[in-house]
Amino acid sequence: METLPLGRAFTLIEPGPVVLVSTHDGKRPNVMTISWTMVLDFSARFAITTGPWNHSFAALSDQRDCVISIPGAGMLDTVIGIGTCSGRKTDKFARFGLRALRASKVTPPLIGGCLAHIECRVEEIIAGHDIVILQGLAAHLDPGVSDRRLIHAVGDGTFTADGEHFDRRALMRAKLPEGV
Amino acid sequence: METLPLGRAFTLIEPGPVVLVSTHDGKRPNVMTISWTMVLDFSARFAITTGPWNHSFAALSDQRDCVISIPGAGMLDTVIGIGTCSGRKTDKFARFGLRALRASKVTPPLIGGCLAHIECRVEEIIAGHDIVILQGLAAHLDPGVSDRRLIHAVGDGTFTADGEHFDRRALMRAKLPEGV
Repeated sequence: METLPLGRAFTLIEPGPVVLVSTHDGKRPNVMTISWTMVLDFSARFAITTGPWNHSFAALSDQRDCVISIPGAGMLDTVIGIGTCSGRKTDKFARFGLRALRASKVTPPLIGGCLAHIECRVEEIIAGHDIVILQGLAAHLDPGVSDRRLIHAVGDGTFTADGEHFDRRALMRAKLPEGV
Repeated sequence: METLPLGRAFTLIEPGPVVLVSTHDGKRPNVMTISWTMVLDFSARFAITTGPWNHSFAALSDQRDCVISIPGAGMLDTVIGIGTCSGRKTDKFARFGLRALRASKVTPPLIGGCLAHIECRVEEIIAGHDIVILQGLAAHLDPGVSDRRLIHAVGDGTFTADGEHFDRRALMRAKLPEGV
């Protein structure tokens, strides 16, 4: 696993991939699939939308930390499996054969086999909107995953993987933060 | 232009595309490129992150409406052009040859040539986070655009278009809202 500078962590979320969010309730870890995420600034601050209907929400709200792991397209069916059962009834790590890797700054684990990971502290939960504000504390890249296409959920039960890539760095230079 | 039921509008934003957001300041329209967006629920409520540093923000904040237009990959360089100049100095409609189409419920225009459009009211601006909460009022699809691949910004000056598509509707059925 390689360290990713925190100032580049927003590049993991900005493309809009489906992500896995792991939590720990003090007794055991859990993991959920989320596609409602947003970058808030270049300093690794993110918003995710989730709420009390979600079993992971109590752990997020009580323990105030999580890990966002970014799966590649090779994990699509695992990601769907994680997203369609509840940690209330299921040990998802056992059921889906997930590898829980130790994080450096938080209690919830990184999910092995993902492309990248952002360890986060819960900064605030915005009442009435179910928006959770996260501050990234550390980020990691796993260069060993061969299928590096992100997965995008359409929301109707279909998904799209990354396709053609376009380099427009020269045009975008003035808008990019230092070091990106 | 076809009407898209509002209950399906979240499927335009959930995949995480770069979008164009048009505003109108009472005198003239403007348009910005945004990739920091998030679905809030299935009823066409969305969050976008922008703030006072952005010329469009005053119009959003004062006039309380906008249109989110979803460009396809064929518009990539127009989208980058719109995102790298300011409406403070530039009439972007003239500069980029944009077609401003009349919206049905709001003053800002739809951007011609895009795949789809969501007319929105500004419901709330969350102080301290630069998060703008939008309520969709009407949604439209333009079936005449041939390249229907969404564009995803990585944030480092590179972009990805949609690639392989996966149908997992059977597995996802229990998680999808009625009619999607």
